[in-house]
Amino acid sequence: MASLTKKELQKKYEEYKAQGLALDMTRGKPGVEQLDLSLPMLDLVTSKDYKTVAGADTRNYGGLDGIPEMKEIFKDFLEVSSTDEVIVGGNSSLTLMHDTISHAVTHGFPESKKPWGEQKVKFLCPSPGYDRHFSICEHFGIEMVTVPMTSKGPDMDVVEKLVAEDKSIKGIWVVPKYSNPTGITCSKKTVKRLATMKTAAKDFRIMYDNAYTVHHLSKEQDELANILELAKEAGTENRVLIFGSFSKISFAGAGVAAMGAAKVNIDWMKGHLSMSTIGPDKLNQIRHTRFFKDMKGVEKHMKKHAKIIAPKFEAVIEILEKELGDKGIATWTNPNGGYFISLDVPKGCAKEVVRLAAEAGVKLTAAGATFPYKNDPKDENIRIAPTLPSMGEIKLATRVLAVCVQLAAAKK
Amino acid sequence: MASLTKKELQKKYEEYKAQGLALDMTRGKPGVEQLDLSLPMLDLVTSKDYKTVAGADTRNYGGLDGIPEMKEIFKDFLEVSSTDEVIVGGNSSLTLMHDTISHAVTHGFPESKKPWGEQKVKFLCPSPGYDRHFSICEHFGIEMVTVPMTSKGPDMDVVEKLVAEDKSIKGIWVVPKYSNPTGITCSKKTVKRLATMKTAAKDFRIMYDNAYTVHHLSKEQDELANILELAKEAGTENRVLIFGSFSKISFAGAGVAAMGAAKVNIDWMKGHLSMSTIGPDKLNQIRHTRFFKDMKGVEKHMKKHAKIIAPKFEAVIEILEKELGDKGIATWTNPNGGYFISLDVPKGCAKEVVRLAAEAGVKLTAAGATFPYKNDPKDENIRIAPTLPSMGEIKLATRVLAVCVQLAAAKK
Repeated sequence: MASLTKKELQKKYEEYKAQGLALDMTRGKPGVEQLDLSLPMLDLVTSKDYKTVAGADTRNYGGLDGIPEMKEIFKDFLEVSSTDEVIVGGNSSLTLMHDTISHAVTHGFPESKKPWGEQKVKFLCPSPGYDRHFSICEHFGIEMVTVPMTSKGPDMDVVEKLVAEDKSIKGIWVVPKYSNPTGITCSKKTVKRLATMKTAAKDFRIMYDNAYTVHHLSKEQDELANILELAKEAGTENRVLIFGSFSKISFAGAGVAAMGAAKVNIDWMKGHLSMSTIGPDKLNQIRHTRFFKDMKGVEKHMKKHAKIIAPKFEAVIEILEKELGDKGIATWTNPNGGYFISLDVPKGCAKEVVRLAAEAGVKLTAAGATFPYKNDPKDENIRIAPTLPSMGEIKLATRVLAVCVQLAAAKK
Repeated sequence: MASLTKKELQKKYEEYKAQGLALDMTRGKPGVEQLDLSLPMLDLVTSKDYKTVAGADTRNYGGLDGIPEMKEIFKDFLEVSSTDEVIVGGNSSLTLMHDTISHAVTHGFPESKKPWGEQKVKFLCPSPGYDRHFSICEHFGIEMVTVPMTSKGPDMDVVEKLVAEDKSIKGIWVVPKYSNPTGITCSKKTVKRLATMKTAAKDFRIMYDNAYTVHHLSKEQDELANILELAKEAGTENRVLIFGSFSKISFAGAGVAAMGAAKVNIDWMKGHLSMSTIGPDKLNQIRHTRFFKDMKGVEKHMKKHAKIIAPKFEAVIEILEKELGDKGIATWTNPNGGYFISLDVPKGCAKEVVRLAAEAGVKLTAAGATFPYKNDPKDENIRIAPTLPSMGEIKLATRVLAVCVQLAAAKK
């Protein structure tokens, strides 16, 4: 499409603004149609039928690490080698991740000489990344070191150098598959390097948030190497903590989350868990195990999700392509899975684009949110979350966004 | 009943032992009949009907502090003055309590000069008390100071003196109503003294675990004064943190928990919560609000619980009375509510009684568990939990226990 003059852009922008829009592309929330896919789950546990396969009463206390059939599904989900390497939590993997860091701060890991709270601790934060990971670090006073994301995952040359040199670097956040927000999947080589790299810190941990492991959008599905297996081969299995949940599979607010790890970490986590709970909600676990049955059931279910949301992603990409494709002012990802499209605008323009869009009634994730301390050094990255709005809203919002990008670029 | 000789007691004990019993009176778990009372709840949320009263979709993310109608019930449950003073959590009040202490350790409360983890912190532990409270303190390196329990609550002469003198004393655990394990309810005077006492620590907190607020066993219901109101009158409302849950009302593993407190603490807790979760399971909240409707519904429901478990308590009391009543070797509580009977045996005998009972196939809570560091200085207190076993099991277990008490006393 031919470039508009700044004046024409401004006019177009004002026209959108005059419409009094109220569109929201901020958070990775599933849409109603997606939630509807799991509705039958609500009818699978009734007053007549609330026991586990083995006949345990899910209503009472107990079962600190989950019921057997839920652990079985998570064994495959998290790609660990046995159910002994699984702890089933409550409804949120974010809670499991937060609590892991919190326990490390107050108590350290088994190999820690002292609690993380009593020493300088840094974390590597491949960016753009997930804002809530970064918030946890900031909350606990863990210094964040930004590492570039590449199309194959975190820039491993940078990562290897840093972790080998600096023993205060105790961990790294990784969303290994269909990453938030760039949508890339770590290459086999990246995963192997993460598993085998030499770390100066003995108690180094990879916070491996495999949030989108089955969240394919395309027939072209990314493959992710098995980090725990690779780590076991290298004798580094203690560093791997894998997290996942059903939040974007069943119900965002009432899913089931889990952690997968080698025994030493499972024992460590169970020790902490036993201080804070007598057990998770097992009734919600049988809702899930009855509905999904096994990982094949989960995968089949995710195809239905893809059918709903892939067109939304396509619509965004198509409009960006049409409006911005030939202008050389922006690049964006076209992921095979996950929940986000990552848009890079001209340097120094992301905040302005988000501001312009907000004024025109299109809410975008705050610029900078995808970087540690909410600070995108180039002020160029914007995260687009296309799942929640309707198709009509998405198209309109993306058109507004495209005008804002052009306008900000023209002003620059 | 006439005293048996040591030889006769030993014979009776060996007879029980020969039966190969396997009875468990350890933990305060509801029995199946109690869980059955809430079964209809499982049919109240279906694939056709999953919205809040206001029409919000409970399946999606959001609602950090709970849905309005759940907060409304907890407002009355926790006896706070508005729903703004309520945070609804997940399935466990223990988690809320643990997390509160954990946040204080890593960050401190708003009035704290520095995090509790960076200073010497002590907690007052009225004992006998709840072992899981004490475990949390021990876990976080908080020094526990044992305070005697009286029939009116913690010995306030001791409490007032300690908290006024020692600014490292940052808190106190209180189960104010039908306490675990002694079953007493704090008198109005005790509650008022807790609310108004002068504390050297500016960031002093009362961990007010009102676990048994509606758990009456008798027509004679204890009344508990409103601590938050009294504290507000005294300008000390920041010190009050009230916890409660439906664990022993609906389903022990799938209830709903909440915290009640003045705004400064609610804001503080929400700040921490927002780091670790996007929101609790709202589907389980509407299960509860639809089933119970309001506090009157809860109270009506609890009468059904009492009908089931009061006879179990009576059976224990009756057997203890019959077997030990005239022997001057033991005393026990006869509570108007709660989940426990507290048994005091001759000094230095509690461990031996528990050991003897275990050998005869009757599992009791470990002696000492009701004291900080699992150390009952007089080795005299045993907690009896009569709710889970059947009536036949309870009677048999109590008879075995009575023989063990006599035998241990005779050996002494």
